Amino acid sequence: MTDFARTKALFHIPKGVIYLDGNSLGPLPLAAKARVAEMLADEWGEHLIRGWNVAGWMVQPRRIGDRIARLIGAAEGTVVMGDTLSIKVFQALAAALDLNPDRKVVLSDSGNFPSDLYMAQGLVDALGRGLSLKVVEPEDVEGAIDESVAALMLTEVDYRTGRLHDMKALTARAHAAGALTVWDLAHSAGALPVDLSSADADFAVGCTYKYLNGGPGAPAFIYVAPRHAEAARPVLSGWMGHEAPFAFDLDYRPGRGIERMRVGTPPVIALAALDAALEAWDGVDMTDLRRASLELSDLFIALVEARCPDLILATTRDRDRRGSQVSFRHPEGYAIMQALIARGVIGDFRAPDAIRFGFTPLYIGEAEVRAAVDILADIMANRLWDTPAYRRKALVT
Amino acid sequence: MTDFARTKALFHIPKGVIYLDGNSLGPLPLAAKARVAEMLADEWGEHLIRGWNVAGWMVQPRRIGDRIARLIGAAEGTVVMGDTLSIKVFQALAAALDLNPDRKVVLSDSGNFPSDLYMAQGLVDALGRGLSLKVVEPEDVEGAIDESVAALMLTEVDYRTGRLHDMKALTARAHAAGALTVWDLAHSAGALPVDLSSADADFAVGCTYKYLNGGPGAPAFIYVAPRHAEAARPVLSGWMGHEAPFAFDLDYRPGRGIERMRVGTPPVIALAALDAALEAWDGVDMTDLRRASLELSDLFIALVEARCPDLILATTRDRDRRGSQVSFRHPEGYAIMQALIARGVIGDFRAPDAIRFGFTPLYIGEAEVRAAVDILADIMANRLWDTPAYRRKALVT
Repeated sequence: MTDFARTKALFHIPKGVIYLDGNSLGPLPLAAKARVAEMLADEWGEHLIRGWNVAGWMVQPRRIGDRIARLIGAAEGTVVMGDTLSIKVFQALAAALDLNPDRKVVLSDSGNFPSDLYMAQGLVDALGRGLSLKVVEPEDVEGAIDESVAALMLTEVDYRTGRLHDMKALTARAHAAGALTVWDLAHSAGALPVDLSSADADFAVGCTYKYLNGGPGAPAFIYVAPRHAEAARPVLSGWMGHEAPFAFDLDYRPGRGIERMRVGTPPVIALAALDAALEAWDGVDMTDLRRASLELSDLFIALVEARCPDLILATTRDRDRRGSQVSFRHPEGYAIMQALIARGVIGDFRAPDAIRFGFTPLYIGEAEVRAAVDILADIMANRLWDTPAYRRKALVT
Repeated sequence: MTDFARTKALFHIPKGVIYLDGNSLGPLPLAAKARVAEMLADEWGEHLIRGWNVAGWMVQPRRIGDRIARLIGAAEGTVVMGDTLSIKVFQALAAALDLNPDRKVVLSDSGNFPSDLYMAQGLVDALGRGLSLKVVEPEDVEGAIDESVAALMLTEVDYRTGRLHDMKALTARAHAAGALTVWDLAHSAGALPVDLSSADADFAVGCTYKYLNGGPGAPAFIYVAPRHAEAARPVLSGWMGHEAPFAFDLDYRPGRGIERMRVGTPPVIALAALDAALEAWDGVDMTDLRRASLELSDLFIALVEARCPDLILATTRDRDRRGSQVSFRHPEGYAIMQALIARGVIGDFRAPDAIRFGFTPLYIGEAEVRAAVDILADIMANRLWDTPAYRRKALVT
């Protein structure tokens, strides 16, 4: 059994805070402080340029990719780190379209994270040749997969409602229709068991600042199925993806396998923080984590529904169809979240009316859930959200 | 006058090291250690997700862009940070091609950094529509600018030889022919005075881990001339470049001006290190820096030529036509550099035969130059490079 008391001790949670927003930005792993300080002083400071070799900076994107591979059911050597999730979406989708050149449609859904849709639109507009992005409702995805579809691009867990797509079934359906798949695991990796290999996914991407606790703006990852690894053509053909970056050839030759999905110089400081953050996952069984997360979510739903009748559940009750976050709708959702945050219960608001809470067993347990609901119930019963200070929108929420 | 004794005290240089490789990776600014530790513990640790607002993470890419703008002759609000230099090259070139849709040629030279050429090739291949990348020799660039050229894409200072292009003249020539310009400032920003405004440059990009000392893999910057800022179309249309990222619209609307060149979530930890590194530039006059750098380079050239007759100068003697680095050629350049590094003189090797030295007055003075040449002369006179250990190539040099 996974020891969540052990993992909880690895994070810094500020006094007086109940942190239910690890689905947006994970908390600081204590090991990251020491690891980054060491990277700065001992690696950069002492090794200087030699750090690329002697401190392993050059191979870090692959080494850390392998650590993440274990959490998402990917084989060693199929995942590499770098850039941001938006860039990785662009890369994966461009490679998928290139592998399926006779098809014209990128199919996605309105529950996808907007940046994925924006990047896809930017890509198809740039590529021209009759390509288009088709966005349907989440429940209509399966029926919309037909022989026009080049690539099915979905985020597995909806960032607002926590609704979970069936990756395996949709991938099979896509393959049957001759389409490739690009899965965004932003709200899946570290949140629930993911098995890219058994789902037969073609491409996958994800960020590491949510459930993987890599810190604000931590690098993204990209997965390419082994069967595509030597055929995928990188449109973002940067020197780090070259077969021999330090030959400084004038012509690009893609590197072997997943190496070609590297682009520019790796973000070494950020990767050091992420590397330390991933220590928390050693010894964690994703099945245990999933069970704990669903128990916490169910408890939260039951308590909120019993005590806060004005909040409307926006997440399905079906355990098989949701991730590890729970959202409720309320017209004054923004103000309610501000009132919660002022009382130390940190979740977040997603327009137009959702308050969203993430249940991350690495550092959240039943006591935190009960305490959070006590505060939420007090705010709702006494309309503590109803003040001008809370109803004024800030830049980010 | 700039006080270089003050700036030298701001950096950590390991004992016994003469660091002539700031043109590849700048040394650790002491302020970066404290700033990053504070960012981790006080901002991420205590503010958690609230850091995006209360710690200013969301506006950091623009705020730091403005600090760099001063060093490259750009107006406030025209520079933004993010991603890597390769990604920024792709972005700038894509926008330039989009603004000049009737032209088919991207013109560059063989002295450009290979990754710029690779990214350009990846872009024109993806865009199709008859676009091509034309690469000429550096001395042939001016003559090759004709009415077929959509965009002239050059690195101002050659990464191997230090040869300096005349940005103002080439930009004027390009404009006269109806072409737009994309300037890579990787070896210029922080190395010599750059005046994008007076050169009338259209787009510029650069990295911050060389002369700007932001650390390994530090974020890149992009400049868009104000006249293009509202017309440039971002092909990498990520949510952070959206007019209203937190409205979570399904459709992309570009943000105002340079904001639209943001892509994904900003790399906050790396930006904190860079922000601290930029403190070294407060009070530095770029004209003073240029004078000091040329004096150090001239001294180095004179001493090496007097004492190491086997080394052939690969950098021009013409002060107006070089940056702040000096290269010499030798068939055993690789082994010579290994022998130097073993003696604490850190420069670097660039294939096929160049040993390269950067002169960065922020932390290098005449004493370091004389001491470095003493060691180099000893290595050359006594063939100390001629051992199997030094002739074996490592991954990165």
